[in-house]
Amino acid sequence: MEAAGILTPSERRDVDRGLDQIESRFGQSPCPTSDAEDLHTWIEDLLVELIGESGKKIHTARSRNDQVATLLLLYLITQGEVLCRRLSSLVALCCRRALEWREDPFPLQTHAQFAVPGTVGFWILRYAVSLDRIRGHVAYYRDRWREFCPLGSGAAAGSSIPIDRLIQARELGFGQPSLNALASTGTRDECLEYLFLAAQTSLQLQSFAADIIAFSQTPFSWTNYPREFGTGSSMMPNKTNPDAMELLRGEGCSIIAALPEAMMLLKGLPSGYNRDLQCIKPIVRRVVEKLDALLQMSTAFIATLDFDRERLKSSLRVGHLDATLRMERMVVRGIPLRQAHRMMAEQLHEPSASTNASDLNCCDYQTMGSAQPEETRRVAEAILSTIDSTL
Amino acid sequence: MEAAGILTPSERRDVDRGLDQIESRFGQSPCPTSDAEDLHTWIEDLLVELIGESGKKIHTARSRNDQVATLLLLYLITQGEVLCRRLSSLVALCCRRALEWREDPFPLQTHAQFAVPGTVGFWILRYAVSLDRIRGHVAYYRDRWREFCPLGSGAAAGSSIPIDRLIQARELGFGQPSLNALASTGTRDECLEYLFLAAQTSLQLQSFAADIIAFSQTPFSWTNYPREFGTGSSMMPNKTNPDAMELLRGEGCSIIAALPEAMMLLKGLPSGYNRDLQCIKPIVRRVVEKLDALLQMSTAFIATLDFDRERLKSSLRVGHLDATLRMERMVVRGIPLRQAHRMMAEQLHEPSASTNASDLNCCDYQTMGSAQPEETRRVAEAILSTIDSTL
Amino acid sequence: MEAAGILTPSERRDVDRGLDQIESRFGQSPCPTSDAEDLHTWIEDLLVELIGESGKKIHTARSRNDQVATLLLLYLITQGEVLCRRLSSLVALCCRRALEWREDPFPLQTHAQFAVPGTVGFWILRYAVSLDRIRGHVAYYRDRWREFCPLGSGAAAGSSIPIDRLIQARELGFGQPSLNALASTGTRDECLEYLFLAAQTSLQLQSFAADIIAFSQTPFSWTNYPREFGTGSSMMPNKTNPDAMELLRGEGCSIIAALPEAMMLLKGLPSGYNRDLQCIKPIVRRVVEKLDALLQMSTAFIATLDFDRERLKSSLRVGHLDATLRMERMVVRGIPLRQAHRMMAEQLHEPSASTNASDLNCCDYQTMGSAQPEETRRVAEAILSTIDSTL
Amino acid sequence: MEAAGILTPSERRDVDRGLDQIESRFGQSPCPTSDAEDLHTWIEDLLVELIGESGKKIHTARSRNDQVATLLLLYLITQGEVLCRRLSSLVALCCRRALEWREDPFPLQTHAQFAVPGTVGFWILRYAVSLDRIRGHVAYYRDRWREFCPLGSGAAAGSSIPIDRLIQARELGFGQPSLNALASTGTRDECLEYLFLAAQTSLQLQSFAADIIAFSQTPFSWTNYPREFGTGSSMMPNKTNPDAMELLRGEGCSIIAALPEAMMLLKGLPSGYNRDLQCIKPIVRRVVEKLDALLQMSTAFIATLDFDRERLKSSLRVGHLDATLRMERMVVRGIPLRQAHRMMAEQLHEPSASTNASDLNCCDYQTMGSAQPEETRRVAEAILSTIDSTL
Repeated sequence: MEAAGILTPSERRDVDRGLDQIESRFGQSPCPTSDAEDLHTWIEDLLVELIGESGKKIHTARSRNDQVATLLLLYLITQGEVLCRRLSSLVALCCRRALEWREDPFPLQTHAQFAVPGTVGFWILRYAVSLDRIRGHVAYYRDRWREFCPLGSGAAAGSSIPIDRLIQARELGFGQPSLNALASTGTRDECLEYLFLAAQTSLQLQSFAADIIAFSQTPFSWTNYPREFGTGSSMMPNKTNPDAMELLRGEGCSIIAALPEAMMLLKGLPSGYNRDLQCIKPIVRRVVEKLDALLQMSTAFIATLDFDRERLKSSLRVGHLDATLRMERMVVRGIPLRQAHRMMAEQLHEPSASTNASDLNCCDYQTMGSAQPEETRRVAEAILSTIDSTL
Repeated sequence: MEAAGILTPSERRDVDRGLDQIESRFGQSPCPTSDAEDLHTWIEDLLVELIGESGKKIHTARSRNDQVATLLLLYLITQGEVLCRRLSSLVALCCRRALEWREDPFPLQTHAQFAVPGTVGFWILRYAVSLDRIRGHVAYYRDRWREFCPLGSGAAAGSSIPIDRLIQARELGFGQPSLNALASTGTRDECLEYLFLAAQTSLQLQSFAADIIAFSQTPFSWTNYPREFGTGSSMMPNKTNPDAMELLRGEGCSIIAALPEAMMLLKGLPSGYNRDLQCIKPIVRRVVEKLDALLQMSTAFIATLDFDRERLKSSLRVGHLDATLRMERMVVRGIPLRQAHRMMAEQLHEPSASTNASDLNCCDYQTMGSAQPEETRRVAEAILSTIDSTL
Repeated sequence: MEAAGILTPSERRDVDRGLDQIESRFGQSPCPTSDAEDLHTWIEDLLVELIGESGKKIHTARSRNDQVATLLLLYLITQGEVLCRRLSSLVALCCRRALEWREDPFPLQTHAQFAVPGTVGFWILRYAVSLDRIRGHVAYYRDRWREFCPLGSGAAAGSSIPIDRLIQARELGFGQPSLNALASTGTRDECLEYLFLAAQTSLQLQSFAADIIAFSQTPFSWTNYPREFGTGSSMMPNKTNPDAMELLRGEGCSIIAALPEAMMLLKGLPSGYNRDLQCIKPIVRRVVEKLDALLQMSTAFIATLDFDRERLKSSLRVGHLDATLRMERMVVRGIPLRQAHRMMAEQLHEPSASTNASDLNCCDYQTMGSAQPEETRRVAEAILSTIDSTL
Repeated sequence: MEAAGILTPSERRDVDRGLDQIESRFGQSPCPTSDAEDLHTWIEDLLVELIGESGKKIHTARSRNDQVATLLLLYLITQGEVLCRRLSSLVALCCRRALEWREDPFPLQTHAQFAVPGTVGFWILRYAVSLDRIRGHVAYYRDRWREFCPLGSGAAAGSSIPIDRLIQARELGFGQPSLNALASTGTRDECLEYLFLAAQTSLQLQSFAADIIAFSQTPFSWTNYPREFGTGSSMMPNKTNPDAMELLRGEGCSIIAALPEAMMLLKGLPSGYNRDLQCIKPIVRRVVEKLDALLQMSTAFIATLDFDRERLKSSLRVGHLDATLRMERMVVRGIPLRQAHRMMAEQLHEPSASTNASDLNCCDYQTMGSAQPEETRRVAEAILSTIDSTL
């Protein structure tokens, strides 16, 4: 504002001093109740009290419309950073566990049916890969959010006071001023983008939860995890329930539902600021807090999760998990796939057919990205190396 | 497959020939009814009929799980391209109209109240800016989708037949094979990403529709557009209704609702392919088709849209549109903003207060991104220059 | 429990006394922090402390699963009552205003275009009719919720202790014990039903808000309402914005979005209690509180709302509102409708065509349910008479 | 219209004859393409061609707005009937199977953990009870939909031609004319109500599907059902997948998602007909068709479903299913519940603890609505008796 000639150098110093005083008095505590229409007006009134007339100038070339758009964007940028870091930690953790567990045999399932042999490490690597992909999206969007600064857009069309928006933008850490004041004050696309990233993350956590609930069910009991992630039953003495994972699956819905809620809010709003837009703030904040809590809980859970190898081993004898690999051995010997498939299916119907768990060898896999322990190692290490460089 | 030693060179030639025959016979027409469980099986059976035993080998090291994931991704990549192009055309059109209309005065609104003067060009530029931002996202995701090829992931864990997935990936136009077979066959994140981009686009089109409906309402009638975008009333001889825009606003909801539908579908699915995943295909296809239709309709509408300058001019005399600019003139003369705001508000309550439309001059705006005609020109031309280079 | 022989009469008196003590100590204040797994366990521990061994019996033939289902249902029944009452008040208020305003002419709109003459009373009666319909649904569901008492369903299958569920059900105000313990503990259909009623109500309030925002826009300014329902602009001295109605339209989305959120939560849960179900409680509570706030705000708004008859009158001269009634006069004189429609449309294109506001006479309407002031009176009084009898 | 004096008796006969001709020519086939703006106009034009001038009168006192509202409501009433019948059949089928299976022991689960003993009949009765409850709601709403006839509401405010709406209403099977023309032409609450009933039904079917998928998983394989409800694997010779149930779970999402889609469509629409409303028709029709298909498929599946009693029996030995009943026996002998709970939990941790499947006796249950076979019989027969009387 000094650059624009609105404040003299001494007025500017007064304003700075006044704002510092306000920050030191109220910065750490909740705002006192007041008659002011909103926070901006309350600060301005306080400033006038502290430094006199020049306080009345601080709203020059500003509107609450561009201020709130700017603050919301700064909040998203920070939360994008936080999400990036949380995802990085979780991805790194999944990779480390994948390395640890890469040779522990596991019955992979499709359609909730035992399908083919894999390893515990290969299974958890699936989440490292999926979450790392989302982490990349978060980084992309965070950079987009930093591009254009809404401040200086005024109410809808800018200002006739020659404020230098380039200075404003740079001081706030943005690349440049936003391109169209009407777009800047009347849209909330960045909020939708954050909510989408949160929803996508949440869906992964919910599938993880569904996996653990399935792995922990009565006849399997493959998992071990600390008591604080489960609860007993008030009526049934024989139960321990995977409550933390059920809550993860359940609470995730509230993160996912926030996106259509926000889209419904925006649906059909005409150009220019409408007060409806204010309702997106609690939606975003609720998601930020819940997602952070769920990511922390998931990280703590995965850090302490373990598998009962004996129980896994006995499960591996069920469901003819070796059928596909045995069929592929025929194929390698020259029998056409379709014929080998039929022969193997017939063998399985003979009463003598049974799988010896020790026959299952994930080392047989030959393709990139397969459940080969060596592949799990290669991929986990590759992801870890990029993560480290981004932290 | 020849590289993997599954097919001899002559078998491979047979397979190629057989597939060519099948394509030329059935490629243009709908599939005949058949007892085959699905399309893949039907093609294999046909191939065996045409070329004999070696046809039985084509499913080697493959599962429908990785095939369908690959086909779906290829479809999304194509549709990402189409969306990119459609958005580019629409953005370029909005920029050209912004240039044309950049000096035509217009009463910008906030809270559905007349707020400050702007121009028709500045208004439509808002859509160019918002849609161009989304276009950038589409380009980003399209590049992500091209990164990893799912083919060769098998049912859930890869194959023990040493297929070279690098060759497969490159021949299909991907960067490299996917990293984890379980992730590749059991997730549909790319579909969600497309659906999100479609929803975000749709929200912009719906706001545009809401604007036009508002601009066309009875006392304004600012817009002119060809008769085919409106309809008369069957009962009321006095009506012409902005039906095309109402349908745009309405139909957009079905695009937006597809995203939560797909997320609900995926919610809580365990790892590994589940047949539920198949239900995402009609969701995506429905959105692709509807979005394309709405984008084409919007483009045709904007190409023929015009404004009635006489009617706009008489509207500009209402609502004290000049108040903010007049207040800012006081500020420039040294009166603190808050005081100038109060003085102007008082003047407006005097009965003599009235705006002379010719006093409204958007050239008064001084800030970047404002409704200054020169700014509209600068921004529109900047966007046009990047668009041209991407087409 | 005394009836079932679990507690002796003296133990039962102890339990009653203990629970009374707990209620008087903690009933009005928030629960102290505790190590207990949940509220039920905390109460039991406290009871044992107060009355000794017999406290250990209170969970007999009970599970938290049936307890929480019962408490949630009792909460819904209460909230159903509250909603019924709030809707009754609002409907009655709309009817009273309809009576007051039944002769004040108003330009009814379709497609956001002036369409045919109506009255302010006829317009607001539309909300009385729609909300009264929903009120009937609330009453229906409240009665359904009262039918079956879940208590005594145990964890999933009832109990082998011969508790008399009929006594339990009646003491809690239900018609009879629920029919299937698995259904009672593992479903939340009643919550969905409440959320649907709330969403339906909310959509009506949002349309009302959209109407008021449209009626208040710059060139119309038909409405008058107290300052506390609007705000000024921080930048533009010329603005008063219909903020309360924009917030009503916006906040309503969070009520509507709660229903798909809850449905997503329940999607695909297997039979029997799953901890995910717990997440429905905050969803319902949030909706209960928000809906109540919005209904109160709407009621306060409608009670003080008024219309500027002068401004309405001048609007009535625009848009050829009389065209349909004039055409129908031709029809009554024997001209076939289609021909009269064409003749009237041609007349309107002549430059001399203009409507004299005083020509618009809603008394011309002849059909039941029309904008005839007499019809508005008849319907408003009919609704008022049923409302009174239900309060 | 004859009653209103618009048509002479002979004109009315002409109109009847003309419409009959049109129906016999086009009633069974798709409409020919035409330049007419819509179906109503096309019929009118045809009628004029067939019977001359009096055809031009048929749109008298009508608008497409009230016609479409009426047709949509008639469609909903029919579909409400269909849904009622389909639900009745399904409920009756579930009751009959519950009777058949009421003594077949079954491990009931909570939190996906084996919990307490039940029977197959008790399990399926849970769906009879839940679906019968929804059937009651469908009957309630169908009666509401039949109450008020929109026809005669005109475009927004009725008509000045003295049409007798009572006659119209009764001839179309409604109770009376609708109360407010603006509400009748501008709202779609009835569609929302149908969509809610469909969503609620769908959630039940999806839980049923989730149950069957869980019961069919590899180590259980409790279920038997015809091959056409499952498929094999193209890669894995060892698999049979419960595809029909996965599709039921997946397709249900598109039914559920239709409700928020429709609510988003209606959100914030002002009073009076808006063309957006037209978009609700394909939503409703899509749901009607899909729901009908899923209900038919579910009915066919349940009719042929069976359970493998041997496999069930061996599962009953796992997970200490008898713990709760054994604990309750202690309670009946006078040990306080909390103490008995602890004692039993300790016993279960001893290595010797094991359940003898033959010890599990659902006849121990004593409470109403429990898994007692006698209770299953009582409830199933009670429901069957009401169903029969409604068919």
